[in-house]
Amino acid sequence: MAARRADDTLGAMAQAYAVILAGGSGTRFWPESRRARPKQLQALAPRSQSSLLAQTVERLESVCPPERMLVATSRDLLPAMRAELPALPAEAFLGEPIARNTAPAIAWATSEIAERDPDAIVIVLPSDHAVEDPTEFRAVVHTAIESARDGVITTIGIRPTRPDTGFGYIEVGGEIARGVHEAIRFVEKPSVERAREYVAGGRHLWNAGMFFFRARQLLDEVSQRLPKLAAGLMNLRRTPSTERARAVEELFAHTESISIDFGIMEKLSKMHVVPGSFGWSDLGSWQTAWELADKDGRGNALGPGEGAALVLDGSGNLVRNSAHQPKLIALLGVSDLCVVHTDDVILVLPRERAQDVRSVVAELERRNARDLL
Amino acid sequence: MAARRADDTLGAMAQAYAVILAGGSGTRFWPESRRARPKQLQALAPRSQSSLLAQTVERLESVCPPERMLVATSRDLLPAMRAELPALPAEAFLGEPIARNTAPAIAWATSEIAERDPDAIVIVLPSDHAVEDPTEFRAVVHTAIESARDGVITTIGIRPTRPDTGFGYIEVGGEIARGVHEAIRFVEKPSVERAREYVAGGRHLWNAGMFFFRARQLLDEVSQRLPKLAAGLMNLRRTPSTERARAVEELFAHTESISIDFGIMEKLSKMHVVPGSFGWSDLGSWQTAWELADKDGRGNALGPGEGAALVLDGSGNLVRNSAHQPKLIALLGVSDLCVVHTDDVILVLPRERAQDVRSVVAELERRNARDLL
Repeated sequence: MAARRADDTLGAMAQAYAVILAGGSGTRFWPESRRARPKQLQALAPRSQSSLLAQTVERLESVCPPERMLVATSRDLLPAMRAELPALPAEAFLGEPIARNTAPAIAWATSEIAERDPDAIVIVLPSDHAVEDPTEFRAVVHTAIESARDGVITTIGIRPTRPDTGFGYIEVGGEIARGVHEAIRFVEKPSVERAREYVAGGRHLWNAGMFFFRARQLLDEVSQRLPKLAAGLMNLRRTPSTERARAVEELFAHTESISIDFGIMEKLSKMHVVPGSFGWSDLGSWQTAWELADKDGRGNALGPGEGAALVLDGSGNLVRNSAHQPKLIALLGVSDLCVVHTDDVILVLPRERAQDVRSVVAELERRNARDLL
Repeated sequence: MAARRADDTLGAMAQAYAVILAGGSGTRFWPESRRARPKQLQALAPRSQSSLLAQTVERLESVCPPERMLVATSRDLLPAMRAELPALPAEAFLGEPIARNTAPAIAWATSEIAERDPDAIVIVLPSDHAVEDPTEFRAVVHTAIESARDGVITTIGIRPTRPDTGFGYIEVGGEIARGVHEAIRFVEKPSVERAREYVAGGRHLWNAGMFFFRARQLLDEVSQRLPKLAAGLMNLRRTPSTERARAVEELFAHTESISIDFGIMEKLSKMHVVPGSFGWSDLGSWQTAWELADKDGRGNALGPGEGAALVLDGSGNLVRNSAHQPKLIALLGVSDLCVVHTDDVILVLPRERAQDVRSVVAELERRNARDLL
């Protein structure tokens, strides 16, 4: 811990706040995830009946109590979010009037925290990932909090377990303090060859979108790099609380739509990264869900529900019997398929086409089949 | 009509009765067909919402009124059969106490008819086939009735449209009267090479299990060839009507379990066959259902129900959305599959494995999943 600064004493007292990003409306887990019940509200992690969002909050509870958590989501999803997290106070939920990617959501939430405590440590976490080892996760989080307390914006980098081309990577430098490394640069999604080099080289980590910083520090960066967003935040802070809804609408109407990665993190002159291995998954598709799931001897992931699925002469299938009234799902002579059954949809596709579920959703949008979106 | 015999005048007056064989409990259309609702009670023919049984009766109505129809089925199915055919009198339904193949059922029904009129012409028809051209079907039936009236047991042979190895064939001889040919021999299910020869040669027809004879004539054959069955029938006829249920049980308990083809028809010294082409199908499996169904430009048979199925990047699929509460069935990137959705089951299998549906049923029997059988 060589780099402590003059405000150490104050900083050490500052509490940690969490900003949970829950505005996603992805379509890759359709038909289970829907506009009104997106992925983070679904129980997609293996061996759990809780939603990914509830699990995210639960994992964090010993780090940060509910009264210091904020959930940034879309305005439409506020009622569902509140219902999912009844332990959080009403003011914990920030409803974005329109989607503007992560930078405006994080900056707004950070601004709210800064009004309470400008020196607060802010933890930014996605709400739709799975973590197999929450104890190890919390140890890594504590290390990252300490790094941020030392004054450097910090991220967690996931040690890669395969040459995945679906993630951005972070190149790691030397160890600065125990478990804390210099982050040399962000790397965009690589080719397969490059990804293999990264995994073999051991100097690249997956960017999981988790960030740690002091509130004031992030807002300073916003002021420098995203002027429209900074102006909107300034206006918001000057607006009396009774009129803030309108100020939020103005902020989102006029701000840049940009990710925190691209807008700020990739441009920082200095950043720290804490490597972590805690069974992380972004649950990117039905393929990922199959990879994580418990499987029978032939690689069939049949999910919970005794006798709800029967596979003869088939291997490598994923069966999701998610309707309120389950049915027997019987597969004969088919392999490597996903079969997803919900209250109103039966979806069948090869696992290797899992990324293309969005094309089904797009077709339903064209047909204006709103009930199914 | 060269071969009329001395009892011509009487014979010409005799009326035609129909025996409809509806005892089948096949599993090849599971999960739509069930023990309690077998194939003949399902609407499996293309472009019709009626059950195959109801269609069989309807096709025959102008040939033979309801009061001259008998339905031979299993005792368990009697209530369902009566409900399906309310126009038929209660005594039209014969409930077999145990399954003994077709010979005992046909002989029993023929014996009942002979009590009313020993010279009656009896038409035996399966109840679970589809016919696309009922007018042509009736023309062929009339020709077969006339042939039987002339004193020779007659069958209808279907002109083959493909080298199917799933049927028995009938070798055809010279034309005896208009549309009526000598039947030279029955041939068991052939190899593919042999079946191709049959189709190319034009001298072989499919055995569709349809037979025409005088009641007394069939009973004479039973007496000669199936003595246990004949004894049971004799006992039955001697039993007062109030005690017949017990006599029927004895008949079925002690008779041979044998098909009418093997027990009698294949052994006849003389038989006639009327070739027919009326869009016949035995609806042998989901594969056959796909072949007959209306399809989109990519060979997907999506069945009735507007918007109930969506196929992207897929061809040659059969979708059956047969639950009372249909769901969207969405297929992405899969081809040549059958997807069958009923109130309690979703079945997925390749079309080419359609014959193996019975193995799913067998597995459910092993699991004692009675509700699903």
